[in-house]
Amino acid sequence: MDPVTIGIAGGTGGMGQWFQNYFTQAGHAVRIAGRKTEVTYEDLVRDCDVVILSMPQKAAMAVAGRIGPAMREDQLLMDFCSQKAGIVAAMAGATRADVIGTHPMFGPSTASLAGQNIILCPARNSHNWLSWVERVFADGGAVVTRMEPEEHDRKMALAQSLKHFLTVSLARMLQTLDIRPDDAFLYATPIFRLNINLIGRLLAQDLSLYADLVSGNPQAPVVVDRFLAAMEESRRAFFSGDEQKAADYLTEIRKFFGDDFCKEALEETSRVIDAMYRS
Amino acid sequence: MDPVTIGIAGGTGGMGQWFQNYFTQAGHAVRIAGRKTEVTYEDLVRDCDVVILSMPQKAAMAVAGRIGPAMREDQLLMDFCSQKAGIVAAMAGATRADVIGTHPMFGPSTASLAGQNIILCPARNSHNWLSWVERVFADGGAVVTRMEPEEHDRKMALAQSLKHFLTVSLARMLQTLDIRPDDAFLYATPIFRLNINLIGRLLAQDLSLYADLVSGNPQAPVVVDRFLAAMEESRRAFFSGDEQKAADYLTEIRKFFGDDFCKEALEETSRVIDAMYRS
Repeated sequence: MDPVTIGIAGGTGGMGQWFQNYFTQAGHAVRIAGRKTEVTYEDLVRDCDVVILSMPQKAAMAVAGRIGPAMREDQLLMDFCSQKAGIVAAMAGATRADVIGTHPMFGPSTASLAGQNIILCPARNSHNWLSWVERVFADGGAVVTRMEPEEHDRKMALAQSLKHFLTVSLARMLQTLDIRPDDAFLYATPIFRLNINLIGRLLAQDLSLYADLVSGNPQAPVVVDRFLAAMEESRRAFFSGDEQKAADYLTEIRKFFGDDFCKEALEETSRVIDAMYRS
Repeated sequence: MDPVTIGIAGGTGGMGQWFQNYFTQAGHAVRIAGRKTEVTYEDLVRDCDVVILSMPQKAAMAVAGRIGPAMREDQLLMDFCSQKAGIVAAMAGATRADVIGTHPMFGPSTASLAGQNIILCPARNSHNWLSWVERVFADGGAVVTRMEPEEHDRKMALAQSLKHFLTVSLARMLQTLDIRPDDAFLYATPIFRLNINLIGRLLAQDLSLYADLVSGNPQAPVVVDRFLAAMEESRRAFFSGDEQKAADYLTEIRKFFGDDFCKEALEETSRVIDAMYRS
């Protein structure tokens, strides 16, 4: 793969640093610009083949509008935002360069790209940067999938907004019951221990990012309502007083997921639980 | 530790097999009786120092009533049921032997006792079997905690019933949306992938057991209501349109959990995530 020069705008943040390291090890030249660096975003536009916006969506949309018009047609403009409809439209509207909305589905504490998902929402591909982008991530073992921005945002309401909403709700419930982790760990199953630790993992990271992952997705309230509807079904199945009803409900769900998936899931989660008790 | 003879009634099941292996390796003699074995529960009472009821609660209560009166004062009667109030009262009422309600907080796919929780609800300790039981589990690295049966059952509504209720509700929601794991894995974060696999883990196991862990705990609906109240608070915090409100809500929750816990939780869950991608 021929080396290219990649500029990361907002590259002093966690994800910017992570990808600076990744691209550098892959043999590319990387330049970083942040709000406090001497190098400006305009310097990146002048000096780089690829410019990546690695910052919260609001800032990314503003920067796209500022630097987009100065980019050449043969360059590539990308972003790492968690939602895609707004930023992809903003980038495509601001520049004649190639545009690929990009969402790495992991955080900066992840050790390696192997097996990690990256979603691409290509908007303009006149100079075929798309195949370069797919290759540069696939070479590190990432699973790269193309998607429309709107489809991406709908899926993130499930994969991110709902999940974080539920983790925060469990955390809030433990807080209102004054149940502290050290006490709960004495009577926790491995799975409950894992869930409590997933609360800590969320709270250990950038809270404004998580707030935005839930609040900022307009599909999030819709998905929360779908979950509430499923809880209502579970309530009827489990608490009707009819034991057989609960078992039938579970059996019907198992049919949908299938035996092969359940077997693989048991194996993968058993590896996970073993890792929890290896300190 | 002097070897004793341990009889496991229902010992042909998953947990019975697990503990047969554990006790044997610890140097004790183990006898097994099931519904289809030649050895009867009455044989265990005659031949063993300790008799353990390893079966669903309803069966355990019936067997306690049947064999309890024949047990000698210097023997120990235990159970492995997931709820304690009913079975502990049934055992204590049926026999003059020592009685210790016991709940191993893990399933038969767990590799080792190290770090695993075991809860004891001692009801009669005339011959000091309690210290023997604490030692036999602590020697394997278990974290052994004493609790009143009612307190245990309240805590299990949180650690088991609610957790399983939420996992099943997520599964049901994915089913109603026709979202299959293979597709979801393409856009999953590591945490969402883990949550989907935890669905598979539950469904791979004994569904009537899980049905009972949720339906059979009278505190479960109360805890589900507490969780719904927390969801309602989360909804107001995240979807009010006021970004600062969500960030403040998260900050207040983080204060309750504390920085030390969050840091440790980030480390433990990072180990877990690494293990997921190592196949």
